[in-house]
Amino acid sequence: MGAEFTVDVPVRFRDLDPMNHVNHAVYASYLEAARTTYLEDVAGIESEEISFVIVDLQISYERPITKGDEPTVALSVTRLGDSSCTMSYEIRVDGDVAATAETTIVHIDPDTERPSPIPDAMAQRIRERGGLEVAASR
Amino acid sequence: MGAEFTVDVPVRFRDLDPMNHVNHAVYASYLEAARTTYLEDVAGIESEEISFVIVDLQISYERPITKGDEPTVALSVTRLGDSSCTMSYEIRVDGDVAATAETTIVHIDPDTERPSPIPDAMAQRIRERGGLEVAASR
Amino acid sequence: MGAEFTVDVPVRFRDLDPMNHVNHAVYASYLEAARTTYLEDVAGIESEEISFVIVDLQISYERPITKGDEPTVALSVTRLGDSSCTMSYEIRVDGDVAATAETTIVHIDPDTERPSPIPDAMAQRIRERGGLEVAASR
Amino acid sequence: MGAEFTVDVPVRFRDLDPMNHVNHAVYASYLEAARTTYLEDVAGIESEEISFVIVDLQISYERPITKGDEPTVALSVTRLGDSSCTMSYEIRVDGDVAATAETTIVHIDPDTERPSPIPDAMAQRIRERGGLEVAASR
Repeated sequence: MGAEFTVDVPVRFRDLDPMNHVNHAVYASYLEAARTTYLEDVAGIESEEISFVIVDLQISYERPITKGDEPTVALSVTRLGDSSCTMSYEIRVDGDVAATAETTIVHIDPDTERPSPIPDAMAQRIRERGGLEVAASR
Repeated sequence: MGAEFTVDVPVRFRDLDPMNHVNHAVYASYLEAARTTYLEDVAGIESEEISFVIVDLQISYERPITKGDEPTVALSVTRLGDSSCTMSYEIRVDGDVAATAETTIVHIDPDTERPSPIPDAMAQRIRERGGLEVAASR
Repeated sequence: MGAEFTVDVPVRFRDLDPMNHVNHAVYASYLEAARTTYLEDVAGIESEEISFVIVDLQISYERPITKGDEPTVALSVTRLGDSSCTMSYEIRVDGDVAATAETTIVHIDPDTERPSPIPDAMAQRIRERGGLEVAASR
Repeated sequence: MGAEFTVDVPVRFRDLDPMNHVNHAVYASYLEAARTTYLEDVAGIESEEISFVIVDLQISYERPITKGDEPTVALSVTRLGDSSCTMSYEIRVDGDVAATAETTIVHIDPDTERPSPIPDAMAQRIRERGGLEVAASR
């Protein structure tokens, strides 16, 4: 399916913890690397203009990631609301799923710092990229 | 209730992201700082001997944390199973709740890397620290 | 000498690397935590207004830092130029020197992004805090 | 010259600081990503067996790195002693030099934690990779 968006995130030595595994908090940074790339490439938002804040993060860890691994983050938008957007992720290593995750971000008016509608042009680009079920797009 | 365990985690400049807020992934490191301190102080595990892996992380972000803030992580064990342990957290700033979170960790046999029962002495120390409901402790 | 400025930086589990030591790059974040606190407390600069960029960093590593340690960063301004400022550091653990370091930062005009003189009031506060040799203060 | 070893290190959103630049401490992690890759690929050391500790780090920052940039770290061994090894680096972005750096690492006997000679086979592979001046190789 064309709707999936993938980003390779090479493991750095600094990502490892005393168990010689990528530390669990770093998975959130891998997801974020994919998400900000998606927002730039698909939704057309420069990183200095990112006007979303994260309100919810959930990660299920399936297997460790180590230095020799070459993780890929696959991202799909699963719900697009008026001012919020939910994304699902798989972090894959060699065809295995190392983790699944979900995040919800909310669009913020930079002046009031309150939730505000996602601009139409941006929502349109996300819808065109696909992956949204019809019922979920409202 | 005396069962709550708290750890202060001073904000470092490196924790901040382009929005001048503590980056959302860093919250997971704040939780981990509290969790590993709990495991050392209460359960009696040295950090080099930590034999737990995280299997699930969930964070709800309520408000941003910035450089001047002085966050405290409050941790309670909410479920203690044979080989797993679920903890709930609040990250508090000035009496406000900046985030709530939950993690589940699983005790691992270092040789087989498979789940294994939490040693009795360790489970006993966690139970004595309290905060567990009776129904949850089995 | 009263001119020394110290900041405690508690070790977080996330700071550790596969050797179970605080990763060498994290020392730079410890120095930065001390430096930004100094700039706020002594020079009166809020972190969102920091108008300095680092141009040089040098760290000598003397001994490892581990989870149980309680590092303190001691900072002194050793040279204050028109637009630049050099600071020396010791990271101390239990009376031992774990690392020595030096950084040079340059004051930047935010509009032109070019070096610009350190404002007089700020330079005055740094001089009053002391630690500068006479010859070095020019 | 064939002696230079290069590693691409994609910028992650988490690398950025409030100035929207890659934080200065993260440069040290970029160097480390290149160095550990070099030690694996050239010297034949797995990351879990790395038996070097860093004793000195020096970085000169020439220009900021931002999210859209695609940095490459170029590494050369400039001195190979009995138990120590000095490497020089350039971090390049679009043909520009964003930073230059130098690190010295020392080979450690894991049992005594004292400096110990770099094994002959490892030193031989580093020499064959080249870039060492004759006088420096002793």
